[in-house]
Parts: sequence; structure tokens; C-alpha cells
Amino acid sequence: MSKQKSKTTAEARKDKVEKLLNELGHRVYDDLESSKFPSLSFASRSVSNIVYDKKLQQFVLGSGTVKRSAGNIKHIRPFTQLLWLAYFSRKLVDEKKTSTLRDVYYSAQAFDVEFMDQAESDELITDLEVLLGSAREEFNVYPEERSAIFGNMTIEYTVPGYEGKKLDLSAHPDGMMIGPAMTTAEFADTDAEMVLAIEKGGLFTRFIEEKVHEKYKAILINTAGQPPRATRYLLRRLHSEMKLPIGILCDADPWGAHIAMVIKSGSANAAHLRDLTTPSGVWLGVWASDIQKYKLPSDPLTEIDIKRVYELKSDPRYKEKLWHDELDTFLKNKRKSEQEAFSRYGLSYIVDTYLPDKIQLLKSN
Amino acid sequence: MSKQKSKTTAEARKDKVEKLLNELGHRVYDDLESSKFPSLSFASRSVSNIVYDKKLQQFVLGSGTVKRSAGNIKHIRPFTQLLWLAYFSRKLVDEKKTSTLRDVYYSAQAFDVEFMDQAESDELITDLEVLLGSAREEFNVYPEERSAIFGNMTIEYTVPGYEGKKLDLSAHPDGMMIGPAMTTAEFADTDAEMVLAIEKGGLFTRFIEEKVHEKYKAILINTAGQPPRATRYLLRRLHSEMKLPIGILCDADPWGAHIAMVIKSGSANAAHLRDLTTPSGVWLGVWASDIQKYKLPSDPLTEIDIKRVYELKSDPRYKEKLWHDELDTFLKNKRKSEQEAFSRYGLSYIVDTYLPDKIQLLKSN
Repeated sequence: MSKQKSKTTAEARKDKVEKLLNELGHRVYDDLESSKFPSLSFASRSVSNIVYDKKLQQFVLGSGTVKRSAGNIKHIRPFTQLLWLAYFSRKLVDEKKTSTLRDVYYSAQAFDVEFMDQAESDELITDLEVLLGSAREEFNVYPEERSAIFGNMTIEYTVPGYEGKKLDLSAHPDGMMIGPAMTTAEFADTDAEMVLAIEKGGLFTRFIEEKVHEKYKAILINTAGQPPRATRYLLRRLHSEMKLPIGILCDADPWGAHIAMVIKSGSANAAHLRDLTTPSGVWLGVWASDIQKYKLPSDPLTEIDIKRVYELKSDPRYKEKLWHDELDTFLKNKRKSEQEAFSRYGLSYIVDTYLPDKIQLLKSN
Repeated sequence: MSKQKSKTTAEARKDKVEKLLNELGHRVYDDLESSKFPSLSFASRSVSNIVYDKKLQQFVLGSGTVKRSAGNIKHIRPFTQLLWLAYFSRKLVDEKKTSTLRDVYYSAQAFDVEFMDQAESDELITDLEVLLGSAREEFNVYPEERSAIFGNMTIEYTVPGYEGKKLDLSAHPDGMMIGPAMTTAEFADTDAEMVLAIEKGGLFTRFIEEKVHEKYKAILINTAGQPPRATRYLLRRLHSEMKLPIGILCDADPWGAHIAMVIKSGSANAAHLRDLTTPSGVWLGVWASDIQKYKLPSDPLTEIDIKRVYELKSDPRYKEKLWHDELDTFLKNKRKSEQEAFSRYGLSYIVDTYLPDKIQLLKSN
């Protein structure tokens, strides 16, 4: 599969965020030129304003708004911080440099812009996301965590110094890190027929050793627990641009189930963002019901696990039959199991026996 | 730089551990054939038997031993577990498969070998390490965590399916994961003159973006906090096989200092192992004294930080002047700082101003 378009995804993304930042600047200048105190309004992120959108299959922000005005003495601090952040982001995008949440906090000090602590600057970064309707990764602010990818696919870089260079994602059998360069790369060519997102590094390596990428023509992604947003964005792109179905494999516990759910439909604290979800992603397991079906070694659910199951039950996204039933099975049997539990039947059992069942499910979805 | 030898590092490693496992098996058979209860003795890992070796510059086990005998009813359980583990490890090595600590725990169940929990199987894996004098990575048992590498170096794989294939470590600017394949690869060719081990992913990416690998001919390693043992083994190999000096860059707090120390001289709980340390590694910073020297933004040390400094002061390895003085500076100023704090002077300051000072130190060491 290959694709053609005039602009790369990264170029389109850069153009979009530059335009948004420019508009933001012009709004402020326009206010000043017409002798008004500049002000900015954007959707409120308070819990009462986070609602579930059935059509989008994710949480979104409601109609409540907040306003930051230079005319209000209480607003001057966050208003200034926000404008500085927009300025700094514009510089990052222009210079094609990436930064981290932590970096932003310290960079502010170079401009005598004060943040009490990183929590405050993180908060403002989220405000800017809401204001622009763009994830911070789009204005080049990345988190620390990285997950990894492996498979039969060639990508083409768009980052400085690597423009046009290609990489075969099967070249390194420990996996390639998913960072700024991977996230903004073009997908050049692949014979893959699916993507498998895997919660744990050990199983990711096992799958590579057992040649799952060849046997099932699968691109493998190690989410390393709850996947960073860059990885969720990459999963969405693999689905939307390459038309690949996305299967998700996690531990059989409420935390694992929620990793699959977040890949499918995001998290409440990203309710202000789009393009980070893959609603058609399929939770392949390990299900609560798989523990019995495959006679897996298991451990009792802890009090915290059980509390978590009840929390998930109150989440509108878990009303769907499969999810609802599996949560009930957790509560009924009060057992959890890990992906590694399949090793009870030998190291290749999970690939030879469990995976074919689940891949059939992915293909029929 | 290139090197020649008849056997690859990975082959030599495999031969060594196979021989050790064979010998272990023969000892048991010999005992049985001469109608004796088979037994195994190895160095005790109790705290009282861990001593600091000045010459090796690391902790080692003393002369205390423990014995597991099939003739002692209390020993039968750990003796059987240990023999099964040796059998299972031999299988892993033979089949060139890797496994994780968690996998081993579950795999035991396939053989009706019982471990109460993973803590117990982890404990036995360490016993086998002591018995063989080999790190578990040598018998293919890896942890979950992975760090990453980037730089101008070509490696040649030895893992199945990739034998003889080469990879350019600058091919992917987010970094290549350090897993079983990287750890066992041969270093084919490099023009690098040093290795920089960096505590954090954000700075690792910054260094790549600022072309530290070209400006200073440096191979960059993201240790992702305290580096996994596979990464410490790789650092040692880069030093001993390629004669590259190793510089270590961490946060200016007692935890960062100890990351550098563990790379140099290991940890007390790996006192039974060799080949995981790089005594000539140089702690480049960020030092406690750098906070003042470079006027870095800083935070007060917490109670826990201060307690940690006192712990380190009682560690024999921290008696050396540099380390001793820096610990005292922590206690005097009671401030800590992070690598990202340099962003206070702009994103490239750390590369343009701080790094040259420190690289001079590395070269003069």
C-alpha cells in the first residue's frame, strides 16, 4: 500500500498550527489597536463541562467557557503566561525544535515569565491546547515517555536533517522508539494487514521472536502501559491513512481494559482534543472471560482493582455489551491475569493458539 | 574503528553459559551416580556477606556460602526450583529465545514447579546468577524496561533471523530500543570518540536535534532513569571493546548522582556479578556545584532527598573527593536542579555552553 498527496502530514500539521497561532496573535493585536483590553475565551475543562459524545465515541467539552482578559487584574497572570506560551510554541514550530513539558516550565524563566511550579505550566499548556484545538505534540511539546514500533513498513522522515530519508521498521528487532521523528514521518510503503498494540515490552519482543509480523502481516506496537499521546496519534494515523485495523492486547485486569478503551476513545482529560482516538480499534483481550476459557493462572483482584471496575462501570463507554459483560465477569470471578500467564503453556502458546483466535475476531470486526 | 575476532561476543557468551549449565547438570548426575544426595553451594547474598572491593571498585560477595541439598527436606523445594530454572534457562539459550522475569514465573507452572509468587521466582533467578556467576541476561532472561541508543555506529546482529544484518544507529532520530538484539550485537564500525549516557528522554532528543552526535562525535544513550542492566552491559562493552570514554549526565540530585555511580560501579544487589560496571565512566554532572556555577533554577531538597544524601555518604564509593564534595554541597545549599533547568537560558544553551566544559573534563580524564 502506498499513498500520494501534495503535502506531507507533518507539513499540513505545521501549517495548521502556525495559522492558528498567527490568528491568536492577530486577535490580541486587533483588540489592542481598537483600544480594547485583549481577552481570550475558550471551553472550560471543569469536570461539569466534560460530556460523552456518542457519535464521536469520546468525551468532549460542553458549552461552558472561561475567559482570560488583560482588563481583569486577576487574569493578567494566566493571560500573560498563555500569550508567552503561544509565542514560545510558535518559535518551536518555526525552528522545528521539540521540547518537553518540563522544558517549557524552565524556558519561561528565560523570559521572566513566572510559573509557580510545573503543574501550573502544564495547566497552561492544556489551556493552549483548548484554545487552538490542537494537541501539544502539534506545537512540538512532547512528554518523556516513549513506546516502540516494529514491522514490515517503510517510513519517510520529515524532521530536519532527515527529510526524505527512509527507514524500514523491521530493521531493528528490539523496536524503534516512537518520538517526534516517528510521529511526524510519512508512511511510505507496507504489506501489513493489521496493527497489534501490545501493553508490555516482554510480549512485544516475544511476538517479534515468534515472527508475528510475518505470520500475520502485523505491525507491532509496544504501548509500554498506557500509551503516550504520540503513540495514540500514530495508531490513529495507521488506521486512517493506511486503512489498517487496530487490535489491542492488554492484561486481563481493569487497568488493561482501560488501556484498550483509551486507544479507542481517549481519556476524559483529553476531552478538548480530537485525532487521538481510534474508535474502530478492537479490544482483543486478554478478557476476563479468557481467564476461564484458556485456564490461565490468575490472581485475586485487589480492593483497588475492584474499586476500579466499579468506576469503569459508571463510564458511558463501558455500556456496550462486550465491555459491560467483561466488567461483570471481573466482578463475578474476582480474578485477574497477565499476558505473560500464557507462558504456563509454553512460550509460543500465545502466538500459536491464542493469537489466531483473536486475529479472526479482528478480521471479522 | 573496527575489530576482528574468531567468535562474536554473543557466541562466546552463549558457549560460556551453556558450558556452565552443563557442568551444573553433571555435578547433580555425578552425585546421583555415586549414591549421594545432590547438593549445590554458592555465595550467600545476605547483607553481611556484601563487601566493597576497592580494586574492582564495586560491591562483591564475601566468603559466606549457602547450601541447597536434596538430602535436607527443607531444601528440597528451593533445590528443585533451582534445577528446573537451570533446565529452563538451558532451553532458552539453546532455542535462542528470550524471556522476562514474569514469564519465568508463569513458565514454571507448565512443569508443575511451584513458586508462591514472582518475588520467589525472581529470588531463585538471582540464586542461579550467583551459582553460574552470570547475569540473567546471559541466560536470556530480560526485564521489561528498555532504554535507547543513537549515534554514528554500525552494529551487526547475532540474533536469529538477523545474523549478519547490519544497522546504522543514526538511522532513526528517536533512538533504537536497547533490548536483547542490541545487547548481543557486534559493534562493526564507528567514528565516535565518546559515549554520553543521559538520564532523560527529553534531553536525549534535544541532543539529537542539536547534532551532539556530529559536533562531538558522541554515541548517545537514553538511560531512562536508572539504566536497566542490559544497558549497563552495553555501556561496558562500548568502553572495553571500542575504547570509548563514557560520560554520564544526570539531574543534580542524589538520585541522579547515584545513576552515575551505578553505571560506574554497580549496585549492592548485583554484588554477585561482574561485567555490568564501567569504573572509568565519568560523572559529568549536573553536579550540586553546577547549580551555583551556572545559576540554574533549583528546588529545595526534600526530607527524602536529604536522607538519601546521608545514605550515599555512608557508601564507600562516595569517599572519593569529587563525590564527597558534591554530596557536601547538596547538604550545604539544600538545593537540587534538573537537566532541563538549562532551558532557562534557551533550548540550545546546554549544548552550546555547558556540554563543551564537560566534554573537556571527559577528554582529560
